[in-house]
Amino acid sequence: MSSIVPVILAGGQGTRLWPKSRSARPKQFIDLIGGDSLFQRSLDRVGDAGRYSPAIVITNAEYRFLVAEQALSAGIEVGAILLEPVARNTAAAIAAAAHLALASDEDAVLHVLASDHLIDASPEYFAAVDAAAAAARDGHLVTFGITPDRPETGYGYIAMGEALGLGAHKVAAFVEKPNLERAEEMLAKGGFVWNSGMFMLPARQFLAECEKLAPEIFAASRDAVAGAHRDLDFIRLEETSFASSPNISVDFAIFERTDKAAVLPVSFDWSDLGAWDAVWKGQERDAQGNAISGPAMVSNSTNSLIVSDHAHVVVDGLDDVAVIATEDAVFVGRLSQAQNVGALAKLLKADDSTRALTETHKTSYRPWGGYSSILMGERFQVKKLFVKPGKKLSLQKHHHRSEHWVVVRGTAEVTVDGKVSMLSENQSIYLPLGCTHRLANPGKIELELIEVQTGSYLGEDDIIRIEDEFGRS
Amino acid sequence: MSSIVPVILAGGQGTRLWPKSRSARPKQFIDLIGGDSLFQRSLDRVGDAGRYSPAIVITNAEYRFLVAEQALSAGIEVGAILLEPVARNTAAAIAAAAHLALASDEDAVLHVLASDHLIDASPEYFAAVDAAAAAARDGHLVTFGITPDRPETGYGYIAMGEALGLGAHKVAAFVEKPNLERAEEMLAKGGFVWNSGMFMLPARQFLAECEKLAPEIFAASRDAVAGAHRDLDFIRLEETSFASSPNISVDFAIFERTDKAAVLPVSFDWSDLGAWDAVWKGQERDAQGNAISGPAMVSNSTNSLIVSDHAHVVVDGLDDVAVIATEDAVFVGRLSQAQNVGALAKLLKADDSTRALTETHKTSYRPWGGYSSILMGERFQVKKLFVKPGKKLSLQKHHHRSEHWVVVRGTAEVTVDGKVSMLSENQSIYLPLGCTHRLANPGKIELELIEVQTGSYLGEDDIIRIEDEFGRS
Repeated sequence: MSSIVPVILAGGQGTRLWPKSRSARPKQFIDLIGGDSLFQRSLDRVGDAGRYSPAIVITNAEYRFLVAEQALSAGIEVGAILLEPVARNTAAAIAAAAHLALASDEDAVLHVLASDHLIDASPEYFAAVDAAAAAARDGHLVTFGITPDRPETGYGYIAMGEALGLGAHKVAAFVEKPNLERAEEMLAKGGFVWNSGMFMLPARQFLAECEKLAPEIFAASRDAVAGAHRDLDFIRLEETSFASSPNISVDFAIFERTDKAAVLPVSFDWSDLGAWDAVWKGQERDAQGNAISGPAMVSNSTNSLIVSDHAHVVVDGLDDVAVIATEDAVFVGRLSQAQNVGALAKLLKADDSTRALTETHKTSYRPWGGYSSILMGERFQVKKLFVKPGKKLSLQKHHHRSEHWVVVRGTAEVTVDGKVSMLSENQSIYLPLGCTHRLANPGKIELELIEVQTGSYLGEDDIIRIEDEFGRS
Repeated sequence: MSSIVPVILAGGQGTRLWPKSRSARPKQFIDLIGGDSLFQRSLDRVGDAGRYSPAIVITNAEYRFLVAEQALSAGIEVGAILLEPVARNTAAAIAAAAHLALASDEDAVLHVLASDHLIDASPEYFAAVDAAAAAARDGHLVTFGITPDRPETGYGYIAMGEALGLGAHKVAAFVEKPNLERAEEMLAKGGFVWNSGMFMLPARQFLAECEKLAPEIFAASRDAVAGAHRDLDFIRLEETSFASSPNISVDFAIFERTDKAAVLPVSFDWSDLGAWDAVWKGQERDAQGNAISGPAMVSNSTNSLIVSDHAHVVVDGLDDVAVIATEDAVFVGRLSQAQNVGALAKLLKADDSTRALTETHKTSYRPWGGYSSILMGERFQVKKLFVKPGKKLSLQKHHHRSEHWVVVRGTAEVTVDGKVSMLSENQSIYLPLGCTHRLANPGKIELELIEVQTGSYLGEDDIIRIEDEFGRS
């Protein structure tokens, strides 16, 4: 019996979790609920080699280093990181993964999962996974249906049809996100489950259905995989082919049209953490119903969510609010209307003066480590750089700025116009305008340094990369 | 006719305007409503030499440089900065000012005003000042009573008695902050005004009443002034005498007991800006009743106050909230219950882990300029220093840290172990542990530099001052 190939969808933007989630480092990659990221937790759930083959992660080029680094730091080996040259929704992404998996195992079963859902990896969960895999091996395209415990209006529902054995049912119908009345009706009537977006698919049968029902997606994904090229640890899908795929979800393209769709009702703990209210529901709360992450004091308030990265938040006399405080943005709103955040983030994105707040955090991650912007002046900027042991930045120069580096932790190897120096804690070096320079961490601990830039233009695009070990020159 | 001596009370802590107001730089000295500080506005209102003598400012030692610098930058000469060695409430402070004023003018009339109220300096206001001064010259101890326009429960009231001429009345009674019912009753009935805490006092008669009604305060303040010593531009009241005064307000000690109290009903624009709801009332508001200072977006919200120093604040779907965002603390609460902030700030102050949030801002001001703490690491710290033209820091050394200075604006004169260097923008210098060093700005524009400290202990108390032009060595 062939093992299961996990297919982790990791290209989402998570705009409804602004201001924590930003397009350069969205929801699945951030420290949202403490400890590992949701992506790392997803990887961890499919890490058992007895049950699973190494995972295929599908994401876009921008997130490739995040995926690689987070997998590495979680200590989990990924089978392949498949890069989408353009976003084409889930149907094409899953079809590409299926083509790739079939190349090494013609009986591959795909466990397709989101990278940004919260699931408790309980024995009950794995029993459901195994039951779904058995149904998939019987030829069913299985979707996991979560047994509802409340009249939730934030999810789509699936009406279950006749039983198929192994606990699975035929799909009778897909139901769009209902209003409260309809949700209560379905909950009372029974036979309805939430559409989790998690699937178990026999790759061959899935592609056969795809070829029949959505031949453009089938061909686009097949050609994109055939024409893919390796780039370091990544597989870049061929762009022209992949871009020719319709931009459509697997639910619409396949599941709502195939007669092979099955639904497995399950009741393990699951949340899509789709908006701040779901994050609140997924967290421990005090006796007043408040969930708090980070430094905060709550007084005379109930049923609220407080999340703070640094600032001390004090909330007084409020009910049903979300207060999300990051270094450069603060959201305060009704927790029960947290769905609005997506639209608000869109407004911020549309405005030049606020766009950056939806894109980047104060800390940016790079394959070699990263940097935090800690102070911006008119003609100067201060950053903290952190470089992982053994890593090296690109050989580069700037046309418009000089830099001072002060090492505050670890050891730096600095090359300036060909001359190499070693700097340890409390040593500094000056990089005059126009010099070629390169920074490396030859040591065993993380290198941290303070960079003071001065000059008339300090944008990130004034970096001329002469050489780079991450393929960016 | 002798002119009026303004007496500005500038020692308050303003805890109800946390997190903007902190004990090291409270309400009256911050940029609360844009532009000049409330203290500077207060100085400005008494700046007309035709009406006023130079002001006496009463404050505590901690605020002396703030007072001096803000007066200087507002371009207003202060007559005297009187420093209270300990806080003894308003009775002793005003009595000390009266003793001081009488020494140069035995007919001095004191215009006692808070440094943290918002008053529109309208012709109506100055007419009231002149009317009060006339009543004071007639021997009355005059308090300004604001004609109420709403049943405010946040202020004390004064019941007006018989008319005294010049628009003033005898004080019939002082009324403590009322409940809403009582406030509505007084508003409907008429003859009641708000107790503004602003007075016009003939110094001699005031002290005569003080000697009669509160002899300990009279003696303590007299001896504290007699024993005072000059320190740079400041007059330090003699501590033992001043400390012997009862700790009591001028209202309780004198006004509620003298038969010379008069009240002048006035109706110029006045607010004590006592809490965030008063700040909201004192500001321009949009059609939805929202008042916004700083970067913010408000959606589907009403009657709210948003104040942000840096972070972009987004408020959605709320009514009657205050969101006050500073770099290191965020307050979110009911605007109509903004009085609670004082008690919450007290809780924060009582806790070691949060005390600093009630004491200092990220930026600290010094007589030579100041510094912002921009990054704290385990064994390093990054600050931005700014030094005013012509100013010089103390000659100092540190036992536990080295420092790197990178000039990012202006020119620095740096003395290290006796050796003087001049550094301009983009130059840096290293200060090894234990060296004696001194920083000065010999130039015409503000000097800004980035300081990177490294060492095992980075507290402000590891500064050994060898020489200081501000009397701190």
